[in-house]
Amino acid sequence: MPTPPISPLAHAHKHQSTYIAQLQEYLRIPSISTLTEHKPDIERASRWIATEMRRIGLENVQIFPTDGHPFVFAERTDDPNAQTVLIYGHYDVQPVDPLDKWDREPFSAEIADGKIWARGASDNKGQHFAHLKAIESILATEGKLPVSIKVLLEGEEESGSGEIDPFLLANKRLLQADSGLISDGAMHPGQPLLAYGLRGVVAMEIYVQGPGRDLHSGSYGGTVLNPIQALAEIIGQLHDKTGRVTIPGFYDRVRTLAEQERELLSQAGYTLDQWQKDTGAWHPWGEPDFTLLERIGARPTCEINGIWGGFQGEGVKTVIPSIANAKVTMRLVPHQDPGEIARLFSEHIERISPKQVKVEVFHHSGSWPSLMPVDSPEIKAAALALEETWSKKPVFTLGGGSLPVVAAFQRLLSVPFVLMPFGLDDNRHSPNEHLGLDYFEKGIETAIRYYYHLAENQ
Amino acid sequence: MPTPPISPLAHAHKHQSTYIAQLQEYLRIPSISTLTEHKPDIERASRWIATEMRRIGLENVQIFPTDGHPFVFAERTDDPNAQTVLIYGHYDVQPVDPLDKWDREPFSAEIADGKIWARGASDNKGQHFAHLKAIESILATEGKLPVSIKVLLEGEEESGSGEIDPFLLANKRLLQADSGLISDGAMHPGQPLLAYGLRGVVAMEIYVQGPGRDLHSGSYGGTVLNPIQALAEIIGQLHDKTGRVTIPGFYDRVRTLAEQERELLSQAGYTLDQWQKDTGAWHPWGEPDFTLLERIGARPTCEINGIWGGFQGEGVKTVIPSIANAKVTMRLVPHQDPGEIARLFSEHIERISPKQVKVEVFHHSGSWPSLMPVDSPEIKAAALALEETWSKKPVFTLGGGSLPVVAAFQRLLSVPFVLMPFGLDDNRHSPNEHLGLDYFEKGIETAIRYYYHLAENQ
Repeated sequence: MPTPPISPLAHAHKHQSTYIAQLQEYLRIPSISTLTEHKPDIERASRWIATEMRRIGLENVQIFPTDGHPFVFAERTDDPNAQTVLIYGHYDVQPVDPLDKWDREPFSAEIADGKIWARGASDNKGQHFAHLKAIESILATEGKLPVSIKVLLEGEEESGSGEIDPFLLANKRLLQADSGLISDGAMHPGQPLLAYGLRGVVAMEIYVQGPGRDLHSGSYGGTVLNPIQALAEIIGQLHDKTGRVTIPGFYDRVRTLAEQERELLSQAGYTLDQWQKDTGAWHPWGEPDFTLLERIGARPTCEINGIWGGFQGEGVKTVIPSIANAKVTMRLVPHQDPGEIARLFSEHIERISPKQVKVEVFHHSGSWPSLMPVDSPEIKAAALALEETWSKKPVFTLGGGSLPVVAAFQRLLSVPFVLMPFGLDDNRHSPNEHLGLDYFEKGIETAIRYYYHLAENQ
Repeated sequence: MPTPPISPLAHAHKHQSTYIAQLQEYLRIPSISTLTEHKPDIERASRWIATEMRRIGLENVQIFPTDGHPFVFAERTDDPNAQTVLIYGHYDVQPVDPLDKWDREPFSAEIADGKIWARGASDNKGQHFAHLKAIESILATEGKLPVSIKVLLEGEEESGSGEIDPFLLANKRLLQADSGLISDGAMHPGQPLLAYGLRGVVAMEIYVQGPGRDLHSGSYGGTVLNPIQALAEIIGQLHDKTGRVTIPGFYDRVRTLAEQERELLSQAGYTLDQWQKDTGAWHPWGEPDFTLLERIGARPTCEINGIWGGFQGEGVKTVIPSIANAKVTMRLVPHQDPGEIARLFSEHIERISPKQVKVEVFHHSGSWPSLMPVDSPEIKAAALALEETWSKKPVFTLGGGSLPVVAAFQRLLSVPFVLMPFGLDDNRHSPNEHLGLDYFEKGIETAIRYYYHLAENQ
């Protein structure tokens, strides 16, 4: 069974125009999760896609209400010994304003220039729909799936995935899988891409209290430790001159990059020129022994996201303020533990805080880093599927950000994810969102191949 | 002539109730400079006090209109070889809100409990009026002044003294004097006090630009120098571990304290306990080789008055901000030059700024430090006058703040000032402002003695 039989691929190709028409219908439901007036559309979309999943042959289709928008779940197991893949997607979409910047009505789902134009075309309806069409093509021709498949579609990814943790906690057995897969985000034009990890994040806040009230610097300056100065000196002790974080123990669990992996990452070809365009900065900064892409994806960081204290208005005010604050997030990589890093951070701050001020550290939240090793069967299967579809080896990347769903699956179910985007940039989150019809079709092909290669590598 | 003849002192004592009645009349004019509706009262007060100065025997009495409120000037020279003292005061007063916290109508100037109760009683009408009554007492009995006296009364000290610089520049010859004297601020109960210097101040702003726009820390964290971090590291390099400012050349012109002066300052008896009460802080900070009072009055400082950048709201935002700012003031002591210190600061910041960010430094404003040496004839005369009046030696202090008028006289006319308060705390700038009648009377006595001792020491 392993290698994808010709029939599912042929079937997909033959029914492409039907699949596109179905996607158009799905895209015409304006399921904007952030706007209350679209709550009925969200519910309509959840029912529509649940019906579709049932129709194509998925089983145990359920709509789970939550305090927010519902989750839609379906699954199918033909071989109880096969491994299980969980496909995650989201059926909610971004708002459409500014509406006057759209060339077409955002929910008309018109076809033009080889693309389908609609809010949600790429992010994320088109991409998870490609998986459903892959499943449909396999079941229509072979009658059974090479791997067990679970599909989980969320209804509020664009409004923060606030329900994902309680939902996972309440449905651990239902959602358990050997691996997860998300097709979201962007590959490069004609160049497939595999993201095999995401960073975690820990959010902290530092509160420094100096004198009991704001003081006049003329009356007390020189005798009182200014809390802004104390805070600045604390922040100044979070990195060494090379950009390395100085918190003791911070790097203890950080995974070492293998030479092979560094070689793979270098093929992504992320250039200084591109970095300069992206950031509007001239000189890169950071750990000198790592490339830009490695610093973004494979190295942890410590960022000051905000700072404030004292007088911020026009002109001059000779005040020694009473308090100063900073917000800090640390990006984590495997196998750092967000709870442990929060503790190490707090201990470090306590250790370096001068006695003349009162320093408190608050721990806001944390999410786990996630990694699917480059030599895992999943990554091998995904790379092969992409290469066969595009006649080009994929580039490998590590995502620098975090996805709540990936972090939650990692933390609560220990399920690692493969991130295999089918679309391009596609004006996601902007006017004129679209998805190339060729990318949609190649997404279906890639998904079919992936399921078979995964069964083959088992 | 030198030592004060008994007659002026006796005259002052004899006419005390008349002087108090006159002060009441002056205090009943609600000359609030910050409120437009009181502009007629300001003008009435200026005319009232000009008339009074003429009546007591001062000459060349003039009211100088400005873009703000008028200055009132008067002078008298009986001996062309005598030195000239310029007495500065202000006839404007603070607003009175919250009115409901006053036990008496703020401009009724009632007498009760041995005090006169009114806005402006201590700050500053009562205190400069004591000088006028000293002059009146001398002229009424001796017919001539032992020193040349110039009196300058300002009408907008409480709204920032915005006209002082142009007025001094335009009237250099008229205002030239050998020394200045201000009776404002507070002595301690029963304990006279002489402030013989004030610090100057230089205000700067630091602007740090990192990336060209706010970036997502997930996408770029680890490759971009965060401008908040850069700013914190810059601020962290402004002081060494002992609290000494590290700007090269910063201390080059700082006047060394003589042992005798340190001894005098130590007699002010400013305790740790008092400092803790004043500041609400527990552990003092600053240059370990200097006492608290020396750090406040005789040592320059560098204070961060405000800082801001990035996200300051509730919760978490994983942003690498594009810019970060800080406001800085440096308090200066003789013989630091505000322009030079601004330049040294800018050069230091430029030298320590990392190349990955763009750092700009702006120079807001500066004012000069001022000092009347403790062994000068003026300070000796003032100390003697206070000791004779109070039967107690004065304590010596250096003011940590700046007064625009003192800074302007120092910079534009090189006139140093003696600061000899006649009042107590007296709820200045608060409801129920008052002045003790005994303090008013002793102020007159002290002023009479000061003029004579100054002539004696010439």
